[in-house]
Amino acid sequence: PKIITLPGDGIGPEVTAAAVEVLREVAPDLTFEEHAIGGAAYDAHGDPFPQRTRDALEHADAVLLGTVGGAQNSPWNSLPRPMRPESGLLALRKALGCYANLRPVRVQPGLEHLSPLKPELARGVDILIVRELLGGVYFDGDRKIDGDTAYNTMRYTTPEVERVAKMAFWAAEQRKGRVTSVDKANVLEVSELWRRDVQALRDREYRSIHLNHEYVDSVAMLIVSDPSRYDVIVTENLFGDILSDLAAVIPGSLGLMPSASLGDGAGLFEPIHGSAPDIAGKGIANPAAAIMSAAMLLRHGLGRSDAANAIERAVALALREEPTRDLGGQADTKTFTNAVLEAMG
Amino acid sequence: PKIITLPGDGIGPEVTAAAVEVLREVAPDLTFEEHAIGGAAYDAHGDPFPQRTRDALEHADAVLLGTVGGAQNSPWNSLPRPMRPESGLLALRKALGCYANLRPVRVQPGLEHLSPLKPELARGVDILIVRELLGGVYFDGDRKIDGDTAYNTMRYTTPEVERVAKMAFWAAEQRKGRVTSVDKANVLEVSELWRRDVQALRDREYRSIHLNHEYVDSVAMLIVSDPSRYDVIVTENLFGDILSDLAAVIPGSLGLMPSASLGDGAGLFEPIHGSAPDIAGKGIANPAAAIMSAAMLLRHGLGRSDAANAIERAVALALREEPTRDLGGQADTKTFTNAVLEAMG
Ligand SMILES: CC(C)[C@H](C(=O)O)[C@@H](O)C(=O)O
Ligand SMILES: CC(C)[C@H](C(=O)O)[C@@H](O)C(=O)O
Repeated sequence: PKIITLPGDGIGPEVTAAAVEVLREVAPDLTFEEHAIGGAAYDAHGDPFPQRTRDALEHADAVLLGTVGGAQNSPWNSLPRPMRPESGLLALRKALGCYANLRPVRVQPGLEHLSPLKPELARGVDILIVRELLGGVYFDGDRKIDGDTAYNTMRYTTPEVERVAKMAFWAAEQRKGRVTSVDKANVLEVSELWRRDVQALRDREYRSIHLNHEYVDSVAMLIVSDPSRYDVIVTENLFGDILSDLAAVIPGSLGLMPSASLGDGAGLFEPIHGSAPDIAGKGIANPAAAIMSAAMLLRHGLGRSDAANAIERAVALALREEPTRDLGGQADTKTFTNAVLEAMG
Repeated sequence: PKIITLPGDGIGPEVTAAAVEVLREVAPDLTFEEHAIGGAAYDAHGDPFPQRTRDALEHADAVLLGTVGGAQNSPWNSLPRPMRPESGLLALRKALGCYANLRPVRVQPGLEHLSPLKPELARGVDILIVRELLGGVYFDGDRKIDGDTAYNTMRYTTPEVERVAKMAFWAAEQRKGRVTSVDKANVLEVSELWRRDVQALRDREYRSIHLNHEYVDSVAMLIVSDPSRYDVIVTENLFGDILSDLAAVIPGSLGLMPSASLGDGAGLFEPIHGSAPDIAGKGIANPAAAIMSAAMLLRHGLGRSDAANAIERAVALALREEPTRDLGGQADTKTFTNAVLEAMG
C-alpha cells in the first residue's frame, strides 16, 4: 500500500518523520511518497495545494498529514484567502471527499494529572467526536466581504447529514452505543434539518443506538463539567471545530490527540495540534499525536487493527517512560520516538 | 425608576421574585411591573412576546428577566419557530436594541473548590465576555428549511461590529485594559470583516488598549487550560453563545452567573442559567445569579454602583454561610434570599 505524506508547516515535518519511522517498523510493506501542502507548498510552488499533490492523491491508499499554517503574524495570513495555508488544507479535505473527522478523546489511565480538570472528572473519559468536515459554513453557498458588509452561508443537505450520522452510528456500535447529536435547533433552521435527519436515520436503521440531541452551548459546558456523560458526539463542521478542540484539552496535552478523516476514498490522518512555529525545527516537538494518527491510519485506512493496537500500546508506555517537555518530561522528538520503537520490541 | 420584570418559564418566577425582594430592600424608590414572556406568555396569550409586553418596555428604565424555555421534550418545542419561547427572547433583545451582552466570569476567593478545573487554574479567574447579541447567524439574512436543504446566513456590518467593540474597549478601560477579539478569520469572510473593524477601531480611538485576535477553536481550549490569560473577550453572537456558556462553568455553578445586555435603550438583566424545569416550583432554585443580575441592573441600568456593590458583597457572604443545594449546601431559595437580606444589614 502507498502512503502519501504531507508534512506541511512548522513542526509538521518533524512529527511526520517520526510517524513514518514507526510505520516502517510495524508495516515494512508500506511505500511512502512525500508531497507539499500549506504554506510550504505556497512558498515552493505558489499554491497551498499544488496540482502535483492533487494528482498524487489518486494513487494513495491513505494520506498522512503533518500540520498546516503559520504564526499569527505570518506573511501567509495576508495572502488572498485562496493562497493561504488553511485553504490548502480545506481543498485537500474536499479533494479526498473526507466528510467525517473522527477525534477520539481518551484520558490514559495514570495520566489524569495532566488534565486541567480535577482528576476525578478526567478519569475514564473516553469520547469520540465525529465532526462533519465538508459542509456547513466552511464551504458551500454565498460568501463575500463587500465594503462594510460580510456574509457567509451555513448550509446542509439531508444526504450530507445522513452520511456523517451513519459514520457516528457505526462507530457507536463498536463502543457504548450512545450518540449525542449537537446542534442549535432553537435558533437555526440548518440545525432543525440536522436534528430531524439524524433522528429519522436512527429510527429507520439504527434502533439499537441510544440517540439524544443537545444544544451546542450546553455541550460546551457539560463536556467540561461532566465529560463522562458522552460516548459518541456527532456535529456539524463549525461546532465540531470548536467542540473537538475543547474536548482535546481534557487529556491535558494536544500533543496526544490524533484524528482520522474518512469518506469516499483514501482517508486522511493527522494530529490535531497546530504547527507550533515557535518550536519548529528544534527537534523537541511531541510526535505522539502524529504517531497515534499513524495508528489510526493502519486501523481505519488499511484495516490493520493489530498493528494499530501495537503502536497505541507502545505510545502509552513511552509516555510514561520518556515524557516529552509539554508533558513535564525531558524527552525530545528523537528520544520519544526511540522509546516507542523500543516498546514495540 | 420603573423596572419591568419578565419572570418567564421554569424557575424564572422564583428567582426573579427573590431578586425583586433584594432590589426593594436596597432601592425602595423602584417600582415594578410584571409582564409575560416565553412559553408562559404563549400559554397565556398565544405569543411568546405579546404586544402588551412590548408596549410596557417603552416606559421601562430597566428590564429584569427570569428564564425562558421548556424541557427538551416540551410541547413548546414543536410549535412553529416564531411561537417558541426562545423566539420571544430573541424578539425581546431586538426590541430593546440590546446589542452587547456582558457576562462577567469571576471565581470568588474561597470558592475555587467548586470549579471543575484544578483549583490552581480556577484561582483568580476574572473574565468579562462581551457577546454581540443582535447580529450574525441569529437574525439577519436568508434562512430557510426547504425539503432536504437548509441554510442560514451569518452576516455582520461595520457599524454592528464597531458598537459592540466600543462597549468592550470601554469595559476594558475600567479593568486591565486587555481585549481579546475572537473570530474564525482563517475560514470566514464575516470574521475577516470583524477582525479588520475591531483592529481599526482600536487603532483609531483606543490606543491604550492591548488588543489581540484569536481563533474561536483555540479560545475554547485556552479558556479551560489557561483562563487567567483573559481579561475582556469580545466576539460575535454564535461564538459568544458557546464561549460564554463554556466560561460560565469555571466558577463551578451556573447558579452564580449574571448577565447584562446593553444597547440603545433600557438594559436587560438576566441570570445565564436555563429554566431548569425539573426543579421548577419546588422553592429550591439558587437565586444568586438573578440577584447578581439585579446588582448589574443597579450598576449598568441605573448608575447606582454603591447599591450594586452592597448586593454583591452580601451574595458572596450568603454563598459561604447558606450555600444552596447546587453548591453542596442545604439552603433553599427562601433561606438563601434571607441570608442575602440579612448580610445587607
Ligand atoms: C486550520 C483550520 C482551517 C482548521 C479548521 O477549522 O477546520 C483547523 O482548525 C482544524 O480543526 O483542523
Ligand atoms: C435560548 C437561546 C436562544 C439563547 C441564545 O442562544 O442566545 C441562550 O442560549 C442564551 O445564551 O441566552
